[in-house]
Amino acid sequence: MTSLPQWDASDVASYVRAIVAPTADAGLAARQRIDSLTKPVGSLGRIETLAIRLAAITGQASGKPIEAKAILVAAADHGVSAEGVSAYPAAVTAQMLATFTRGAAAINACARAARADLYVVDFGATAAPAPHPSLLSFRVGSGTANMARERAMAPELVDVALGYGIAAFEYIAHGRAYDAIALGEMGIANTTSASAISAALLGVDVRQVVGRGTGIDDDRLQRKINVVEGAVARCAGTDWRTVASEVGGYEIIGLAGVMLAAARHRIPIVLDGFIVAAAALLASRIAPAIVDYCIASHVSQERGHPAVLSALGLEPLLDLGLRLGEGTGAALALPLLEAASRILFEMQTFAEARVATSVE
Amino acid sequence: MTSLPQWDASDVASYVRAIVAPTADAGLAARQRIDSLTKPVGSLGRIETLAIRLAAITGQASGKPIEAKAILVAAADHGVSAEGVSAYPAAVTAQMLATFTRGAAAINACARAARADLYVVDFGATAAPAPHPSLLSFRVGSGTANMARERAMAPELVDVALGYGIAAFEYIAHGRAYDAIALGEMGIANTTSASAISAALLGVDVRQVVGRGTGIDDDRLQRKINVVEGAVARCAGTDWRTVASEVGGYEIIGLAGVMLAAARHRIPIVLDGFIVAAAALLASRIAPAIVDYCIASHVSQERGHPAVLSALGLEPLLDLGLRLGEGTGAALALPLLEAASRILFEMQTFAEARVATSVE
Repeated sequence: MTSLPQWDASDVASYVRAIVAPTADAGLAARQRIDSLTKPVGSLGRIETLAIRLAAITGQASGKPIEAKAILVAAADHGVSAEGVSAYPAAVTAQMLATFTRGAAAINACARAARADLYVVDFGATAAPAPHPSLLSFRVGSGTANMARERAMAPELVDVALGYGIAAFEYIAHGRAYDAIALGEMGIANTTSASAISAALLGVDVRQVVGRGTGIDDDRLQRKINVVEGAVARCAGTDWRTVASEVGGYEIIGLAGVMLAAARHRIPIVLDGFIVAAAALLASRIAPAIVDYCIASHVSQERGHPAVLSALGLEPLLDLGLRLGEGTGAALALPLLEAASRILFEMQTFAEARVATSVE
Repeated sequence: MTSLPQWDASDVASYVRAIVAPTADAGLAARQRIDSLTKPVGSLGRIETLAIRLAAITGQASGKPIEAKAILVAAADHGVSAEGVSAYPAAVTAQMLATFTRGAAAINACARAARADLYVVDFGATAAPAPHPSLLSFRVGSGTANMARERAMAPELVDVALGYGIAAFEYIAHGRAYDAIALGEMGIANTTSASAISAALLGVDVRQVVGRGTGIDDDRLQRKINVVEGAVARCAGTDWRTVASEVGGYEIIGLAGVMLAAARHRIPIVLDGFIVAAAALLASRIAPAIVDYCIASHVSQERGHPAVLSALGLEPLLDLGLRLGEGTGAALALPLLEAASRILFEMQTFAEARVATSVE
């Protein structure tokens, strides 16, 4: 990745214009087919709803199932970690990037279980990690500025981060035609950034969206609330670009860019936890149709996650008490997408299978 | 399958004697390892609990992950279908067996998504299905007798069905060393049999465990309640063999036999819905330790399922509004087992990965 494309706001705008709403007709055709398959009507519950959404997203009520799956983990550092809002030091971001490339983290195990290809994208860790084939470098900077003292980044960098997210998706999709992409993140202190984005864009009290992240104690939680309150006071009620500029972070804005590109290409987007949901919220302010391309994999233990999912109108598939991030919840849900698409495409109807439909 | 082994009660008893409790030490070692992995303690929620249970079941806190997965669908017919307790005619059992072998049913789609091998075992459909490589024939009879009028089967056939279940597992395990087995069922009217087993063994009111099965109307539901009440009156408070003899069915008892064999070999057993849960309840009266080998994949929409899971002390992993059976819910949960085992076996600890554990 020696020469990166240059992105500006007009490039992003061209992507946004190209995003169309999912195809209602394909969803309807999928519903009709599902109701004719060899099973009692409605008996696969939310797997049926999922299959219908996937048909609408891809515009295809028949075809090939979701087999080629990508997981993209977006990483960056946050200047606000200097405020002691996390249980871990900022150095852990780079250490975990190295662990990802060694294949030894939770997301690696989950990716293997899901038969998914894993890509790690560095949008701006404090220290640039060592080059590795599975690590993409789209560095907007070396960590954001400390939102407790100043804006996290210049507004121009918001567009760069969005553009880099688009570029990261295009790079991955160019290498293999993926049927679905699951999104995760890594970045010490990034729940602080996600909380500030959520509070500023939703206009809710920060206490409703600030949680314990990796597991902080009461003192750190109070500090985190104070920091988020201060930062949100500077940008609540403004536009998405100002909010992103004030509270960051690079990987969250990068994820929003990935979502814009995936939606443009009509690829289902599987959201992980709170931070990825905050990125979807940000993306939805850029292109409202984005939400229709998003599937909520799970509801986490992090305080603000249910509120953001609810604001997006998304119902999570899993509830397993997760609060790790990295894309682990999204990876765990990927096999459900494959199953839903296989049910839609590979089952026979009562007529095709010559099975009696009732006792009459 | 031309010459089947002969099974009698003493053969079953030898299996029961060989079932030991899961290894608490392996579970403890797994807990300790999980708490040292590169993630906040407890941050993988129920996936961690699952990994610990899998370690205790297999007796291995390190080793190879759950990759080789089998799904066994047990099928049979029920004489009680003549009472109009189902929305579908009994002929559908055989028609669905043919659909399974053609690969065109919901469980086939789910098995492919889970990368699992699918085996269908005919424990006694009314009409013997056409031979097929993926169909095992362990026929106890051609459907049970109508429990509304007489006992479903002679007590000796209960032991034959249990023995055939053991034999079916041994046949499958002889062909490939599976790391986990998911269990499902097919049999028109088999929720009637499962309801009767549950009510008789748990001593609860039949209305608490009789539901709409494939989707019956109020008239049929009342008929079903009456039938179950009558049959349960004949066997409530008796032993498991009498209950099984009175209310059947071949595939449910067969599933109990499969569980006895899987537990003896320390293979994790993934339960599907209500009928498979009733089989686990029956098996737990034969060998109480069986429950510790069972993992509840999901909670279904069928009335009695939560009550039976609660009686077994099992907490379901998924809640997706399913009510199909065939093993579909169990198949959907199989990737979670693989992920849990990969997390336990393939992640590095903080020390191994040289990741900082706290800000101190």
